[in-house]
Amino acid sequence: MTDDASSALLTDRYELTMLQGALHSGAANRRTVFEMFARRLPENRGYGVVAGTGRFLDALERFRFDSAALDYLADAGGLDDTTLSWLADYRFSGDVWGYGEGECYFPGSPILVVEGTFAESVLLETVALSIFNHDSAIASAASRMSLAAGGRPMIEMGSRRTHEMSAVAAARAAYLTGFSSTSNLEAGRRFGVPTAGTSAHSFVLVHDTEREAFEAQLRALGGDTTLLVDTYDVEEAVRTAVELGGSGLGGVRVDSGDLSSAAFRVRRQLDELGAPKSRVIVTGDLDEHAIQALAVAPVDGYGVGTALVTGSGAPTASLVYKLVARSARGTHELEPVAKRSVGKPSKGGRKWASRRLDASGAAAAEFVHEKEPQEEPRLRPLLRRLVAGGEVVGREPIDEARERHSRSIAELPETVHRMHRAEPVIPTRFEQPDPA
Amino acid sequence: MTDDASSALLTDRYELTMLQGALHSGAANRRTVFEMFARRLPENRGYGVVAGTGRFLDALERFRFDSAALDYLADAGGLDDTTLSWLADYRFSGDVWGYGEGECYFPGSPILVVEGTFAESVLLETVALSIFNHDSAIASAASRMSLAAGGRPMIEMGSRRTHEMSAVAAARAAYLTGFSSTSNLEAGRRFGVPTAGTSAHSFVLVHDTEREAFEAQLRALGGDTTLLVDTYDVEEAVRTAVELGGSGLGGVRVDSGDLSSAAFRVRRQLDELGAPKSRVIVTGDLDEHAIQALAVAPVDGYGVGTALVTGSGAPTASLVYKLVARSARGTHELEPVAKRSVGKPSKGGRKWASRRLDASGAAAAEFVHEKEPQEEPRLRPLLRRLVAGGEVVGREPIDEARERHSRSIAELPETVHRMHRAEPVIPTRFEQPDPA
Repeated sequence: MTDDASSALLTDRYELTMLQGALHSGAANRRTVFEMFARRLPENRGYGVVAGTGRFLDALERFRFDSAALDYLADAGGLDDTTLSWLADYRFSGDVWGYGEGECYFPGSPILVVEGTFAESVLLETVALSIFNHDSAIASAASRMSLAAGGRPMIEMGSRRTHEMSAVAAARAAYLTGFSSTSNLEAGRRFGVPTAGTSAHSFVLVHDTEREAFEAQLRALGGDTTLLVDTYDVEEAVRTAVELGGSGLGGVRVDSGDLSSAAFRVRRQLDELGAPKSRVIVTGDLDEHAIQALAVAPVDGYGVGTALVTGSGAPTASLVYKLVARSARGTHELEPVAKRSVGKPSKGGRKWASRRLDASGAAAAEFVHEKEPQEEPRLRPLLRRLVAGGEVVGREPIDEARERHSRSIAELPETVHRMHRAEPVIPTRFEQPDPA
Repeated sequence: MTDDASSALLTDRYELTMLQGALHSGAANRRTVFEMFARRLPENRGYGVVAGTGRFLDALERFRFDSAALDYLADAGGLDDTTLSWLADYRFSGDVWGYGEGECYFPGSPILVVEGTFAESVLLETVALSIFNHDSAIASAASRMSLAAGGRPMIEMGSRRTHEMSAVAAARAAYLTGFSSTSNLEAGRRFGVPTAGTSAHSFVLVHDTEREAFEAQLRALGGDTTLLVDTYDVEEAVRTAVELGGSGLGGVRVDSGDLSSAAFRVRRQLDELGAPKSRVIVTGDLDEHAIQALAVAPVDGYGVGTALVTGSGAPTASLVYKLVARSARGTHELEPVAKRSVGKPSKGGRKWASRRLDASGAAAAEFVHEKEPQEEPRLRPLLRRLVAGGEVVGREPIDEARERHSRSIAELPETVHRMHRAEPVIPTRFEQPDPA
C-alpha cells in the first residue's frame, strides 16, 4: 500500500541466477537491448492499448535491494557473495524508450525498449512484464467498453472481483481509456482518479423498510444521489424514490434483470412522475457487448465490474520481454540475436516504430524500423524517451495518457468500433523482415 | 510491498457513503450478519477451493484509517465530519467464522460469516471480496492442475502474466493446493513458499555460444542445475548439456514445440547419453488439460504460468458478500433478510455448514444449517472461528492450509478428477430451504 517500498523482489528467481551465471562468464557487462512486444493480440481484438508506463517508472525507481530483500536472498541460498554484493549496489543506469502510455499497439509493436548491460536489464524483466501485461490487458478491454458506451459516463467498479492491488491499477487503466470514475478509493488517493458510488442492497436491507433507507440516503448524501431501486420491486421503489427525492433526484440504479427493458420502463416512469432529469444508471455483468446492446436504451451511465478487471476474456496481454541485440565478446557493437524455438520465434535487432498516416490523417500501418526513422510527413514516431542514463525523464500526468489514448483511437480506421470477430485494424510492416 | 501499511482505502466508495447514511438513520449500530458465498461454480468445475483467509486476517488487522487516508477522504468531499471521525476510530470489534483455508467449497457454502454492527461489517466488504475472489480463483485452478499432475512436482511461474502483487498472492494460493515451488521471490520472503528457477533464453543468447552459456551456468549454479535446451536445436543442446554436465546433470527444460514428443525424445537421448537421472522439465502454455495429456510422457516436473495466474479461464471466483440477517429497530434479535432482485436471489439467515460423510468416510453432501449442528458421526463441521471480539484467533501456518486441502480433496468422490464438463461433485443441501 505504501508507494515507496522496494519492488526488487517482485521478480522471478531465475533473473538472479542468470545474473550470477553472467557475472561468472563476464556476459553481465555486455551491452544489450531488450524489447517488449506482443506476438499477437487476443482473439477478436482490433488493437491493444499500452498501459502501465507510469507505474513501471515508479517501480523502476523503487527497484533497490534493501536489507530485508538481501537478508531473505542470503537465507534462501543459491546466490554467492559476489552476486549479493552486486545486488546491494544495484541501480539501473541504462536507457528506456517506450510507446506513450495510452497509445494503441499491434502485433510486433516494440512498446518498450530497454538498453543497458545484460545484468541491469535482465533484472527488470519480471516487474516490467507484470505491470504492462496487467495494465495493458485492462486498458485494452476498457477502451472497447468506452467505445461501445459512445460517450455515456462509465464507472469502474470491479475492485471486489480482483486482487486488492490489481484493483487500484485497473481503476487507473480504465480511467486512461475514458472511464469517468472508479469505485476504488485508493485509486483516487494514489492516482487522482475521480471516485463514485452511493449504496448497495445491504443498505436497503439493513433498514426496516426501503422508504427508511431512501430517506436516510437522501438526508446523508443530498438530493443529487443515486438510489438503488431493485432490492424488492423496481416500480414501487422508483415511486418511493421520486416521492422522497422530488424532481431533483439525482438518479436511480438498476443492477439486475434485463437491463434494456428495465431502463425503458424506469425512464418512462421517472418521466411520468415528473423527474425527467433524474438519471438511469445500469450495472450488473456488463461487458463491451452488453454495453453496445444498450446503445438504444435510455441509459445515462454504466457501471462495469467483473468484465473490466478480468480484461473481458483476455486477463493478460501476452507481452514478452526478449533480448534482441547484444555486443559480442570484446566489442561494443550491438548484434541482433533471436531464438529459434518452435512456434515462438522473435525478430532480432534494436527497433524503432512509427505510425504511417494516409492523406486524411488516418492511421494506415504500423512501421517497425531497423534504424531511427527520418522526419517525414505522415509518419508519426511512436517511441518516447522514458529513462536516460538511469534517470526517469518520461513521467507525465495521467491525463496526458488519457488524451493520447483518445487521439490514438480517433486516428485509427473506423473498424476500430468492431466488437465481434475483429482483426488488427492496421497491419504491422517490418522494414526489413528478419528471415528468422 | 510492506506488510504493515493500511488496507482501509482498498475499498469501494459506496461502503463509506452507506456508512454515512446509516449513521444518519441509526442503522449503523444494528447487529448484522454478512455471509460470503458463491451462487455457482465456474463452468465445468466440480469444486472450488477457499483461499485468502490468512491474507484477509492480515488485511483486517491493517484496516485502519490513518492520516493519509483521512486527509484524502476529507479532500475528496462527500463525507461529513461525523463520518470522518467515526472512521478515524474504526476498529472491527465483531466476530468472524470461515471455512478453513484450503477447504473445498460448493455453490451456497457460507465460506465466511461476519457478525458485528452494520457499520463495522459493511466496510470490510470490498477488501474481503478482493482477497477471497482472487486467491480462491487461483487456488481452484491450481488444485485441478495439481490433481492432473498426479504428484509430479509443479513450479508456479506466472508472475509476469499478472499484476505484480497478484503474483505474490497467486504463488501462495498455488502452494497451498500442492504446487512445490514458485518463481516469485517476494512470495518466498513473505509467505515462505520455496522458490525455484535457473535461466531463460536471454541467458543463452547473451553469450557467444550456447556452450559458453551452459558452462557459465554449471559453474555458477552447480551441476544439479536445469539447463534450458530449446533456444536453438534441442538435440544438439542436450548433447552439449550432458557433455558439460555429465551424468550428474540436474535436468533440462523444454519450453516450446509439442511437449509430449519432446519429452520422449529428450528422455531417450538423456538415457542414451548416460544421464538417466537427469530430469526433464516442461513449461510453456500448460494448463490442467495439457498437464493431464502429458501424464504418459516421461516428464519429471511442470512449470505453469499464464493459466495458473489467470485462473485457467475463471480469473475470479464470483464470491459475493451479502447481508443475511440484522436486528430490527429497538431489538437485538437477528431477523433473516434477503433481496428479491431478478436472477440474483439470496437466502436470508445466519448459517452453519458441515460436510456429510458416507460410511466409507467419503464426502456425500454439503449441508447448510440454520442452527449450529449437533455433534454427530459422519458430519464434519466446516466453520472455524477466525476473529473473536475483534481479535484475530484463527491465524495458522500456510502448511496447515496445504494439508487441509490435501485431506479435503482426498475425502471427495472420485469424480473430483474429472477435468472436462465437471459438475459440483457433491450436492449442497439447505436444511430448510428459504422460499425466496
